[in-house]
Amino acid sequence: MTDVLEAPSLARLDDTGRGLLFTDARTANTFADTPVTDAELSDIWELAKWAPTAANIQPLRVLFVRPGEGRERLVRHMADGNKAKTLAAPAVAVLAVDTQFHEHIPTLLPFRPELKDVFEGNETMRTETSQFNAALQAGYFILAVRAHGLAAGPMAGFDAAAVDAEFFPGGRLHSILVVNIGHPGQDPWFDRLPRLGHDDVVQWA
Amino acid sequence: MTDVLEAPSLARLDDTGRGLLFTDARTANTFADTPVTDAELSDIWELAKWAPTAANIQPLRVLFVRPGEGRERLVRHMADGNKAKTLAAPAVAVLAVDTQFHEHIPTLLPFRPELKDVFEGNETMRTETSQFNAALQAGYFILAVRAHGLAAGPMAGFDAAAVDAEFFPGGRLHSILVVNIGHPGQDPWFDRLPRLGHDDVVQWA
Repeated sequence: MTDVLEAPSLARLDDTGRGLLFTDARTANTFADTPVTDAELSDIWELAKWAPTAANIQPLRVLFVRPGEGRERLVRHMADGNKAKTLAAPAVAVLAVDTQFHEHIPTLLPFRPELKDVFEGNETMRTETSQFNAALQAGYFILAVRAHGLAAGPMAGFDAAAVDAEFFPGGRLHSILVVNIGHPGQDPWFDRLPRLGHDDVVQWA
Repeated sequence: MTDVLEAPSLARLDDTGRGLLFTDARTANTFADTPVTDAELSDIWELAKWAPTAANIQPLRVLFVRPGEGRERLVRHMADGNKAKTLAAPAVAVLAVDTQFHEHIPTLLPFRPELKDVFEGNETMRTETSQFNAALQAGYFILAVRAHGLAAGPMAGFDAAAVDAEFFPGGRLHSILVVNIGHPGQDPWFDRLPRLGHDDVVQWA
């Protein structure tokens, strides 16, 4: 026995998990009537929150919209092609960026609280960093929806300024993506669209 | 028997998978000497590519940098605090956005090829859409690294203009994130940093 520390060993995701999150998962365009509970929605966030952001800033915010008056207020601001499926989704998430995310830095990055002031004094850096990291977290969020046995239907087609005025009147949050969430309904998927070829994407150095 | 179509039912990701991708996964700061093969790197992309993008545009491009001359060229442009760990990583991915992504639209979205011309004529929309969706794909990429039993070390601290001049001299690709990839080494993790509380992030409507 020596006292050399062992390096940790990591497992691979099994084929079932790969299928669920990536290879078999599809964007849903119809949803079953099965409700999605508040506990399920909360747990989606509780899973997604662990994936990394730059300097741990976590700029993404989530508004969960349920059937009823909230959903009707949202549907008004969706693009025409997205209204029917959003109206049929048992839950919808409006993902937004917190433009004042840096106020949390002394809590989130306790060994470097002064980064708050760096962001405070540099609006370009603040905007670019928060937009990039909120989008990164939106990617985590979509996969976290799938991890809960639910189908995600992300949509960029909505009037973001109108959604912000409707739900985020303080002006601090800016919506970036709307995601329908539910159990898939009948005939829920379109034919799978092609992916770019390996050599169109990957380079080597 | 009726001819009513059954709606598909989706499974939940098991606890092992949740731990691997989200709850137990950590950003690595040291790496073991164990090499990462080109096949493993290619397969990371082959997994990540399936997750969704707006209008299927897939604007992310990936440069895999291996030990040797390529890595030395990259390390020069990393922030000082990131040089040592990048030099120790058995593989590094430079993630970039393809600013001319819309050229692929007739192939990627065959039922709406005219969207290529819409992007062609609107530089603001082209830039915003490609940056958002490339960041979304960067989130998928980080989780796909973890799905391969590898640790990811994403870093925003590098001179992006210099990296672009070094590796993407045509000017078409703009680097957005550098990700160290490898098996974790000894003492690879810092203490886990706090996450925002549920009520700081989640709202309901």
